Amino acid sequence: MFFHIKELQFKAKPERPDPAYARKLQEVLGGQFGEMSVMMQYLFQGFNCRADRKYRDMLLDIGTEEIGHVEMLCTMIAQLLDGAPADQLEEAAKDPLIGAALGGMNPQHVIVSGLGATPTDSNGFPWNSRYIVSSGNLLADFRANLNAESQGLLQVVRLYEQTTDPGVREMLSFMIARDIMHQNQWLAAIEEIEQLDGPIAPASFPRELTVEEASRQFLNFSEGEESSMGRWASGPLYDGTGNFEYVAKPQAMGQQPELAPPAPHQHSTPGTPPYLVNKGKSL
Amino acid sequence: MFFHIKELQFKAKPERPDPAYARKLQEVLGGQFGEMSVMMQYLFQGFNCRADRKYRDMLLDIGTEEIGHVEMLCTMIAQLLDGAPADQLEEAAKDPLIGAALGGMNPQHVIVSGLGATPTDSNGFPWNSRYIVSSGNLLADFRANLNAESQGLLQVVRLYEQTTDPGVREMLSFMIARDIMHQNQWLAAIEEIEQLDGPIAPASFPRELTVEEASRQFLNFSEGEESSMGRWASGPLYDGTGNFEYVAKPQAMGQQPELAPPAPHQHSTPGTPPYLVNKGKSL
Amino acid sequence: MFFHIKELQFKAKPERPDPAYARKLQEVLGGQFGEMSVMMQYLFQGFNCRADRKYRDMLLDIGTEEIGHVEMLCTMIAQLLDGAPADQLEEAAKDPLIGAALGGMNPQHVIVSGLGATPTDSNGFPWNSRYIVSSGNLLADFRANLNAESQGLLQVVRLYEQTTDPGVREMLSFMIARDIMHQNQWLAAIEEIEQLDGPIAPASFPRELTVEEASRQFLNFSEGEESSMGRWASGPLYDGTGNFEYVAKPQAMGQQPELAPPAPHQHSTPGTPPYLVNKGKSL
Amino acid sequence: MFFHIKELQFKAKPERPDPAYARKLQEVLGGQFGEMSVMMQYLFQGFNCRADRKYRDMLLDIGTEEIGHVEMLCTMIAQLLDGAPADQLEEAAKDPLIGAALGGMNPQHVIVSGLGATPTDSNGFPWNSRYIVSSGNLLADFRANLNAESQGLLQVVRLYEQTTDPGVREMLSFMIARDIMHQNQWLAAIEEIEQLDGPIAPASFPRELTVEEASRQFLNFSEGEESSMGRWASGPLYDGTGNFEYVAKPQAMGQQPELAPPAPHQHSTPGTPPYLVNKGKSL
Amino acid sequence: MFFHIKELQFKAKPERPDPAYARKLQEVLGGQFGEMSVMMQYLFQGFNCRADRKYRDMLLDIGTEEIGHVEMLCTMIAQLLDGAPADQLEEAAKDPLIGAALGGMNPQHVIVSGLGATPTDSNGFPWNSRYIVSSGNLLADFRANLNAESQGLLQVVRLYEQTTDPGVREMLSFMIARDIMHQNQWLAAIEEIEQLDGPIAPASFPRELTVEEASRQFLNFSEGEESSMGRWASGPLYDGTGNFEYVAKPQAMGQQPELAPPAPHQHSTPGTPPYLVNKGKSL
Amino acid sequence: MFFHIKELQFKAKPERPDPAYARKLQEVLGGQFGEMSVMMQYLFQGFNCRADRKYRDMLLDIGTEEIGHVEMLCTMIAQLLDGAPADQLEEAAKDPLIGAALGGMNPQHVIVSGLGATPTDSNGFPWNSRYIVSSGNLLADFRANLNAESQGLLQVVRLYEQTTDPGVREMLSFMIARDIMHQNQWLAAIEEIEQLDGPIAPASFPRELTVEEASRQFLNFSEGEESSMGRWASGPLYDGTGNFEYVAKPQAMGQQPELAPPAPHQHSTPGTPPYLVNKGKSL
Repeated sequence: MFFHIKELQFKAKPERPDPAYARKLQEVLGGQFGEMSVMMQYLFQGFNCRADRKYRDMLLDIGTEEIGHVEMLCTMIAQLLDGAPADQLEEAAKDPLIGAALGGMNPQHVIVSGLGATPTDSNGFPWNSRYIVSSGNLLADFRANLNAESQGLLQVVRLYEQTTDPGVREMLSFMIARDIMHQNQWLAAIEEIEQLDGPIAPASFPRELTVEEASRQFLNFSEGEESSMGRWASGPLYDGTGNFEYVAKPQAMGQQPELAPPAPHQHSTPGTPPYLVNKGKSL
Repeated sequence: MFFHIKELQFKAKPERPDPAYARKLQEVLGGQFGEMSVMMQYLFQGFNCRADRKYRDMLLDIGTEEIGHVEMLCTMIAQLLDGAPADQLEEAAKDPLIGAALGGMNPQHVIVSGLGATPTDSNGFPWNSRYIVSSGNLLADFRANLNAESQGLLQVVRLYEQTTDPGVREMLSFMIARDIMHQNQWLAAIEEIEQLDGPIAPASFPRELTVEEASRQFLNFSEGEESSMGRWASGPLYDGTGNFEYVAKPQAMGQQPELAPPAPHQHSTPGTPPYLVNKGKSL
Repeated sequence: MFFHIKELQFKAKPERPDPAYARKLQEVLGGQFGEMSVMMQYLFQGFNCRADRKYRDMLLDIGTEEIGHVEMLCTMIAQLLDGAPADQLEEAAKDPLIGAALGGMNPQHVIVSGLGATPTDSNGFPWNSRYIVSSGNLLADFRANLNAESQGLLQVVRLYEQTTDPGVREMLSFMIARDIMHQNQWLAAIEEIEQLDGPIAPASFPRELTVEEASRQFLNFSEGEESSMGRWASGPLYDGTGNFEYVAKPQAMGQQPELAPPAPHQHSTPGTPPYLVNKGKSL
Repeated sequence: MFFHIKELQFKAKPERPDPAYARKLQEVLGGQFGEMSVMMQYLFQGFNCRADRKYRDMLLDIGTEEIGHVEMLCTMIAQLLDGAPADQLEEAAKDPLIGAALGGMNPQHVIVSGLGATPTDSNGFPWNSRYIVSSGNLLADFRANLNAESQGLLQVVRLYEQTTDPGVREMLSFMIARDIMHQNQWLAAIEEIEQLDGPIAPASFPRELTVEEASRQFLNFSEGEESSMGRWASGPLYDGTGNFEYVAKPQAMGQQPELAPPAPHQHSTPGTPPYLVNKGKSL
Repeated sequence: MFFHIKELQFKAKPERPDPAYARKLQEVLGGQFGEMSVMMQYLFQGFNCRADRKYRDMLLDIGTEEIGHVEMLCTMIAQLLDGAPADQLEEAAKDPLIGAALGGMNPQHVIVSGLGATPTDSNGFPWNSRYIVSSGNLLADFRANLNAESQGLLQVVRLYEQTTDPGVREMLSFMIARDIMHQNQWLAAIEEIEQLDGPIAPASFPRELTVEEASRQFLNFSEGEESSMGRWASGPLYDGTGNFEYVAKPQAMGQQPELAPPAPHQHSTPGTPPYLVNKGKSL
Repeated sequence: MFFHIKELQFKAKPERPDPAYARKLQEVLGGQFGEMSVMMQYLFQGFNCRADRKYRDMLLDIGTEEIGHVEMLCTMIAQLLDGAPADQLEEAAKDPLIGAALGGMNPQHVIVSGLGATPTDSNGFPWNSRYIVSSGNLLADFRANLNAESQGLLQVVRLYEQTTDPGVREMLSFMIARDIMHQNQWLAAIEEIEQLDGPIAPASFPRELTVEEASRQFLNFSEGEESSMGRWASGPLYDGTGNFEYVAKPQAMGQQPELAPPAPHQHSTPGTPPYLVNKGKSL
């Protein structure tokens, strides 16, 4: 069960409206790696958590915080949209600043949402739940979370470069700090699980049932061997089970596919006279 | 530029048809973390790569391999669909095995694809490119890759538990091995970048411009403090910049939002008489 | 079965081209609450109608009218796109009016549709059938219809404010009138059903099987009690079964969730040695 | 800012697992009118609210409650999935109950989510934010809310008919009560606004700028006049501005469309010799 | 403008209910190549038509017919859903026929649509407008239409094999006939345009501006030359401009890509100290 | 199995950056008929091919080539994005060229992809696999392929008109040539199949089971008979089975639909007292 506090977690007040920037800021609200994604990802992982109680609690703490980040971003976007002009060509012709604003705006901000934030990204594409994952496996999911916080922080930093509004920058400074903390958090949580199970997720599949040499080989599927120069191509495997092997010319180990001819009921075979497989009670 | 070899990278031949399992196997072909996702993710990261040449080469090597994995899975699924019955109720009534097969099949395998694999997941949902990311930042993207290989391996292991067909299991044994290798590969590549820049992605934002205390605090947004018992709540921060702090009762630092009243041109204000903002040349 | 009349239901002729406005007008053609939505919603409700014949007839009358509205909007958009320039930067640099047009255009109008209307909204997002509903319950569906006409009229009024082209405004004046009529129509149809069944949709679930006090309580899930000042928080319930109750501090009535540990075949449990649940005929 | 309480708002404990019903229950969690939809719809309307403070507070109270409903449904679904079998054909052949469960399950519950709830509907289709609306206009949005609660209650009642598990039914009894309350709430809130502005949303467009007769006419776009027998076809308009008029044979008032020929740069005109409009610096 | 006739274009009455077949039949109603697709494709092509008046009329004639096909399929599906059971496990255990029906049903038919047709395919995936195209070029679009009628007829024939209900088969016999006619129609219309412009769409790009040899070469991007044995690899080009050439070992003609290093404002470059490009008025 | 060659198939180097054109070029990379579509369509048709080996080889040859086209377009787009400015209003105000670039850019190019190509169209809409088809029937699928190459070439020609950059035009000249070749290829392949089976896809349904007259009739579903003037309305049917017939006034041959009343368990019937169908073990 949840409760709401009327104050925002942190200040969200721009110095001046900027409808074109409002559109851009939508990316970290409703985009693939926006706050809606981390909010829903952490909440679902928490609600579904079958592991030790401390993991559920931790996941729901951070998920609950992220609802508040969605709130901050919505509040900021609504204020950036204040004063958005309604009309178009005439005004744009007079003032290039207005023209740029109009050209860069999301039209749905003035047609659909009444100058409010929309649950979409910077191109107006709706958020959808395939952005998130809750697999039940803590190591796999904490890596999903680390990935989300890494992509998210990167986007916020890029957006910081694209405005000089002190109010916007102040809020972003807070969000950047929280994303840094959250990367630290997932890195620590991953470390905790890896110390138990090692770095492969899941660790529970018996190695002897795999094609073992294939779990060591970097396969060079191209002309030239620049790819041999990385940490991933030689030296010890990260999971400690042996060494990387660089296979310069990988060979096919499988058959040449030979699919059976089409089933007659599929009507895909050229050169047949008309027929019906399932005679049934046809006309 | 790419070339094709007619043989598969590894054997893909089931012992017997199993249309219901064919539907399930679609998940790791065209699902969120299926082979289409890693194939397209690595290819786009490689094509867009602006870093040292060895990274581009490595990304395209693995991306090229994954095209071959898509090929193996399609071949396997087409063979699992051999012998799929066309008709429904009558046959199901006679033989519970057929009934189960029919109930569990994807109807599009017999209506749309002619008993071929479809570019969709196990519920027939189409693959879409929001499953992938190519951000230009190596650390962020390698974490996306590690996440994809972790979720993907987990799903393949679960699918291994759901069949006993030796031919299917043999192919999955190979795919499991490759996923283990690919996790090793991304872990190694991440290590290489982290040794240069530390574990925060991106590292290049000046810390003094963040709200610094917020980058250390675990905020307990719930009653009860089970979440304090993890590695993420005390001890040194993973990035070495200080210690985690557990804030048991987080306080709001922001304002109570007060949005400006609706712009008249939005026609959202209750209690107004009819009006027109933009008089223009109306009727 | 349907027939087509070559004349439009109402005039649809702009005074001058305006490709940026063409993009905006797409919202009420192919957006969430555009004419495609009401057309398909009314047609599906009519085709599926199991109630008295007059409802089916009424639904198909208005659904058939809406096909004609799609036609009017397509015709208008195609004409607004006349004279859209093909080239970009050079021309924009010379004339800010052209620059604004180019910046505000939907690129697919010049690449994909040949200066024709597209079945998409103002951001080029495709129409999809999750915008509509046909539930079989008249009261529920008439409320969906009233909602669609309310959101749709609001958007058309906003678009009216964003142009001064007399031809566009004339067509919008007609569409506004029809939307007002259609709101009247659904309000009247709702009244007819509510007089029979009361205002809860569906009315047919036995009240004694509900947790009855919960059907009266406004729960204040926040600090502060501003929400107590509305009609929804005190006085008689709209359905006449009692009075609203304002619960200032709602209490949890449920358990603290305790999910069972992960099923072994899911490979989600940390700290286990490698294993296989379904031994079957593995390697 | 938000806080979490560890107890659920109401009990959510099934008497026995039922994986096929778990799939069905997903509809009211992540479907078009599920709890995720009302949660996000009320939160966005609240965050964007520019009207009197009591509306924002009310919207966020109910939005916050709905987060807790998502939590209850996730908890219930996870428990219904307990004991879901991993394997398929063999077991199905032995026991028709297991066969039915397997045939009716969502395969992603055993491949993707680790026997946890997914943010999708009963066909595994992901939730997306085009299910919701926040327009800035209170009357339009409260109608969207009433619609959502009506469709949602209808679905929950249907799902109640499809199980006899006392634990599931108990939770549904609570959710049904809340949906009844929420319909009462929106009906009351709508009444409050309509008493101010009348029943047309938005009321603020000047009627004299509409094609007035069109705002009164029911147009009979079909053979036969069954549609004349409803409240919507005669008698006073719901908004009190006159009477419904039934037009038995509507006439076209618009032109026959004549679009200009294709712009040459679109290369759509048959019968032309090869050419280039934009000579530029071509080969 | 459109009118509705109450009778269906052709009989649509099944002999007995069959909810599992109702789900399958959805494919040709709301799937990629279902009747909704051809209806919307022809209507949009007609509304947008800038060519001779006879094309617009023809497109709208067939588009209008297809609305009536949507009507027939909805009517059929609603009747196939009559008698669909509400409950699940108990009944399935008693009667394998009911079990198969339940396992094969679309749950949304009993939860969402009230036993009515849904605007979705056989997996419950919603129809969306990216299924259709209206490009403004008649030859390109008539080919899209021929493709849609070919895929659509194939699916209807497959569905015919999957039922023996005489009522369903009778309706499908009519739809098959119309699809054959419509293939004839588009083949004839294509012939008309090709006689004017030749077989390349569009014909209007000057050939001398292309890399001419590349317009004749079949490139063998694989080991082995089976692909040389088709009509496409030797003999005269279909457009009469020369002969096919089979290139057994295609060579790269392009550069090895060298992308510029990342722009600093993107924060993608490893190994840099923290910095800010856009100093602005930061904290 | 696939291999990668480091050189591009053809040069892909623009003379100067042009971020607004980069957005437009995305259409033929990740749009409905872009290179991702033909690549995936040909690969899936090849992987699923059950016909003579030469077809599989041919499909995979061209599919493999198209992977290289995706590579060329990504490379080109990344270079067009070089020098994209980060900031917005200030710069736009100074220089209309920069303003136009900013207004026309895809914001995700500077927020999400790090100045790299995205797997989306020119409006940022993600590629999805419903753009493609692999039906198992060669004639149907080759028509899908011809359609894709026709729409694709049309779009590339339009994009050629929208730039004068010699480097971009040179690459497009190559792509245009390949698209012309590929149209020739599919036309030839279609001819080969049609000579065997005739022009109806599939040919294998017995004509005597269709409603035969309906396979000859052009139905004039509108007032006026302009549609009678085309090749499709008179003269021999393209498949040689008779002559087109023009039906000026088509008559309904079906019943007036009468659906059964709603099933009680659906709770859709107005005027009923509260009830429960499935008594079970309710509260």
